[in-house]
Amino acid sequence: MASELARVANDGLAEICRKYPHVFPSFVAALPLNDVEGGIKEMDRAIGSLGARGVQLFTNVAGKPLSASEFRPIFRRMAEYDLPVFIHPMRGPNFPDYAAEKASEDEVWFSFGWPYETTACMARLIYSGLFDELPQAKIISHHMGGMIPYFPAKIKLGFRQIFYGTVERNPVAEERRLKKPPLDYFKMLYADTALGGEDAPTRCGHAFFGTSHCLFATDAPFDPERGRALIADTLKGVQALGLAEKEMNLIFAGNAQRLLKL
Amino acid sequence: MASELARVANDGLAEICRKYPHVFPSFVAALPLNDVEGGIKEMDRAIGSLGARGVQLFTNVAGKPLSASEFRPIFRRMAEYDLPVFIHPMRGPNFPDYAAEKASEDEVWFSFGWPYETTACMARLIYSGLFDELPQAKIISHHMGGMIPYFPAKIKLGFRQIFYGTVERNPVAEERRLKKPPLDYFKMLYADTALGGEDAPTRCGHAFFGTSHCLFATDAPFDPERGRALIADTLKGVQALGLAEKEMNLIFAGNAQRLLKL
Repeated sequence: MASELARVANDGLAEICRKYPHVFPSFVAALPLNDVEGGIKEMDRAIGSLGARGVQLFTNVAGKPLSASEFRPIFRRMAEYDLPVFIHPMRGPNFPDYAAEKASEDEVWFSFGWPYETTACMARLIYSGLFDELPQAKIISHHMGGMIPYFPAKIKLGFRQIFYGTVERNPVAEERRLKKPPLDYFKMLYADTALGGEDAPTRCGHAFFGTSHCLFATDAPFDPERGRALIADTLKGVQALGLAEKEMNLIFAGNAQRLLKL
Repeated sequence: MASELARVANDGLAEICRKYPHVFPSFVAALPLNDVEGGIKEMDRAIGSLGARGVQLFTNVAGKPLSASEFRPIFRRMAEYDLPVFIHPMRGPNFPDYAAEKASEDEVWFSFGWPYETTACMARLIYSGLFDELPQAKIISHHMGGMIPYFPAKIKLGFRQIFYGTVERNPVAEERRLKKPPLDYFKMLYADTALGGEDAPTRCGHAFFGTSHCLFATDAPFDPERGRALIADTLKGVQALGLAEKEMNLIFAGNAQRLLKL
């Protein structure tokens, strides 16, 4: 069922790309993850026959973390293709924020739960050794890396590190046998600029990931004006970085062209 | 039991302040929240007799949100005193990040769960109408407001607002009968600068809260050098804001002196 839905979705996206190649030069494929082998077959079909240049996964698979070893073949195969994995958050109001409650209220699950999901997913992928195994893996974290750029200090200083480590030695990273300091791996991630165009956050995200790891994106059409506000605002937010034209063009197009081999 | 522990803690802090008044001009009191009436008695004793100039609460009370109506008398009484409520995150590894798991792994509960807790707590307090009822309430959110300064766009554009609202109309805020746009209330919060001294995040937090709502703090002694690194780094981070000396002094001392009536 999931396999069939993914096929229908990918066929549809491929058709749109064939019809409007000047607007949609390519697409990223959906994969059924309840069947990893089937997911890889669909990946091969979408990339090999339909012209997809990446895949989009969600931060969890029916509640399981993407870092689970059963999903690692997906990342391995994408690293072989040398094409990016886009990771989007997935969480609903049924994920409570308080132990005494059964649901998340006031849309906290969306406003802040989504960036939290993205962040937890990236942390778990990193601590699972993803980048030691696949240093060429290209992971694109939506919404400018979730919480990562605002909390490099929390990445640099773990909880047990405070009490049992040193400035250089993080006990959890050692247990996980990571080869580099955790922060180095977080800097290997890519991020899109979908932060609603806010100046200071966009600058904070850019400071963390750097020009070469930022890709323009907007979250359109998801605003009450069918995306017009998000596109205009995000353009302004990226322009407000005040970068040289050449650098700006990398964020708007060059980095995506490079990663997606367009 | 909680009442007795709070009394012992507050007596101890008061004693330290009496012994070293040039270093510790005052303290903020711990309150037992399993007994709100007893909590208010301890608040009155700590502020009235011991010289406390605020209270410190945690983001949840045994799993219940601070926004629950049973805790509102605490906020009301603190507003009468016109003294600040400091709110610190509280979450352990027993709070899982994935529906299929029983615990949080790789210290995600700490590194990112704490700022998420702070953010969820602030959102719930705001949507519960705290600032409409008590516009003079002074709430200090630790760690530069958690995720708030990186995600003003997510505060401005709620989930149902995308589909059923307009740029101005947020259905959840309307259901909660908030008098102002949600973002206006988030701007009423105060924040401390405990972000480990990272330049870009500190600038992002300052851009959101403004000089008058930022108070210097460091998380010392919680680093492997007993706080020396955190103090030095955070000083540098705040100085890197490049503010005029008068503004800088507000963050380092003036704002705290004003809020704590020192």
